[in-house]
Amino acid sequence: MKLATIHDGSRDGQLAVVSRDLKTAHMADAIAPTLQAALDDWAFIAPQLDNLYAQLNHGEARRAFEFEPQRCMAPLPRAYQWAEGAAYPHHLELLRRADGAELPDSLREEPLMAWGGGDDFLGPHEDILLAHEEWGIDFGAGLAAIVDDVPMGATPDEAHGRVRLLMLANGIALRNVMPAELAKGGGPLQSRPATGFSPVAVTPDELGEAWRGGKVHLPLRAARNGHLVGQPDAGADMAFNFPQLIAHLCKSRRAGAGSIVGTGPVSNRATAKGKAPPGYACIAEQRSRETVLDGAPATPYLRFGDSIRIEMLDDAGKSVFGAIEQTLRKAP
Amino acid sequence: MKLATIHDGSRDGQLAVVSRDLKTAHMADAIAPTLQAALDDWAFIAPQLDNLYAQLNHGEARRAFEFEPQRCMAPLPRAYQWAEGAAYPHHLELLRRADGAELPDSLREEPLMAWGGGDDFLGPHEDILLAHEEWGIDFGAGLAAIVDDVPMGATPDEAHGRVRLLMLANGIALRNVMPAELAKGGGPLQSRPATGFSPVAVTPDELGEAWRGGKVHLPLRAARNGHLVGQPDAGADMAFNFPQLIAHLCKSRRAGAGSIVGTGPVSNRATAKGKAPPGYACIAEQRSRETVLDGAPATPYLRFGDSIRIEMLDDAGKSVFGAIEQTLRKAP
Repeated sequence: MKLATIHDGSRDGQLAVVSRDLKTAHMADAIAPTLQAALDDWAFIAPQLDNLYAQLNHGEARRAFEFEPQRCMAPLPRAYQWAEGAAYPHHLELLRRADGAELPDSLREEPLMAWGGGDDFLGPHEDILLAHEEWGIDFGAGLAAIVDDVPMGATPDEAHGRVRLLMLANGIALRNVMPAELAKGGGPLQSRPATGFSPVAVTPDELGEAWRGGKVHLPLRAARNGHLVGQPDAGADMAFNFPQLIAHLCKSRRAGAGSIVGTGPVSNRATAKGKAPPGYACIAEQRSRETVLDGAPATPYLRFGDSIRIEMLDDAGKSVFGAIEQTLRKAP
Repeated sequence: MKLATIHDGSRDGQLAVVSRDLKTAHMADAIAPTLQAALDDWAFIAPQLDNLYAQLNHGEARRAFEFEPQRCMAPLPRAYQWAEGAAYPHHLELLRRADGAELPDSLREEPLMAWGGGDDFLGPHEDILLAHEEWGIDFGAGLAAIVDDVPMGATPDEAHGRVRLLMLANGIALRNVMPAELAKGGGPLQSRPATGFSPVAVTPDELGEAWRGGKVHLPLRAARNGHLVGQPDAGADMAFNFPQLIAHLCKSRRAGAGSIVGTGPVSNRATAKGKAPPGYACIAEQRSRETVLDGAPATPYLRFGDSIRIEMLDDAGKSVFGAIEQTLRKAP
């Protein structure tokens, strides 16, 4: 099923079920007021949401309305845990190569992962507000999973069955702020502003054959100001699948229902046979490639007024999650 | 006022008001079901809680009951944002000195700060469950502030007025896991298991003159297996006060109501004139001191069965927050 959170002026919005074709929706307030409430009691709530989803898809839901992604908050407008792993080490490899550095083997054996702030997620059409272009503002098109309770020490196999929902993420990074932060040794903080998410979160079964091996085997399309900049396959070159990312997070702690685990920017190693060039799911990779090839980056980071569109289409060309469409604006 | 969350089998518990002397409590469910609900609408809710607090302190609350810290969850059992800064750089300085390294100036100019997972906080009497003593399990006695909404780019002065509640924290660190994690460059993750908090959170006015300059000027007492190991003054040597920590967090993002900002282990540079030696608020400092003086650490990290007690007394010798009393147990 597909779920969204409709903005109603409250901090957590209202849970809605969205039709498979993303055309209609139905408030789920009679079942659960918010997505977090549904996740807190998933075994009891999910079947009820699923019934409503079936009715909606069959045109039988009594109070269906037109689904407008513009009215959406992030599916989880705030989450108690938000951790992002570098599931595509090729992304890190490219970035380091521009600095003449190699990727340490440790980052191929275990994912690099860091927590973020879960108190302030952006809706799919919400502006990205930041103060300075000079911070090197980059988008980052990736995926994220919302999990149920995961016990401490869970294996990847155990973690696999705890993935409840998947969604798209736009992880903003301040590329010119990050190096000094990482040099201090505490991980990124000021260089990771609020993250945006797709209009809907979907249960893995919605992906059919595209969800296999704990990965989503579909291209993720990213466009800047209307021009496609990348369509890397999210299944290819994913060195750490979602179960592995979740198990990594839970080595010394349990994870509570509603925890979100992200992949970082999708990145493909090379063009797959017979496919279009993957391009880039963030600007830093493109700049790194330019630096390696031409000695200097040519593509600028985001400028105020620039827009980013992130979307994933299934094999029939239908949007799975709806599109993230965010514009960067100067913070007042 | 003083607030606690009583365990009732739910994920967020029930909000209660606790008397100043920590002897009686009164459920606040008629005002707000949970502390997060109170924080989400603080301007409206806080005066009502304050009325109940006054009644309770005057013995006029109708359904007061004996306050039992054993029944408490963390004041916020889960939070949408949890960031810990190194407010006492002397702590880092000591740790690095044992490795023969100097503290970089950047860590004196700006706090080292990292996010944690806010989905799983431990109550004041909840066992610390971990799998391996070999991880180098350390406690960390510090303070934490719960804030109201803070706008992006807030100055320390602006952040000062957004501190709603203060509490004690026991930040567990896996000292033998951390070095490899930090070397990878993403900050600590597996080395930071669930954090414990004091029975009650208190509004800053409860501290009277001890709350000044954005700091809590009282000694924080830490004991291991009943033996006092430290009583450093939380006001002395705090290089970054709470307003500065919060402003650091909010440079490129806003913080939502209920975000928690911690200080890391309290650490004093030297014995203040006429005061008892400060000792240690974590084991790593003691081991570092031993390494510098004797060439090797003598004090072991926590062993299964070890207990930790963390408490702060006011100038009259009364407990301000109640005590954290946690025992380390082997995870099943």
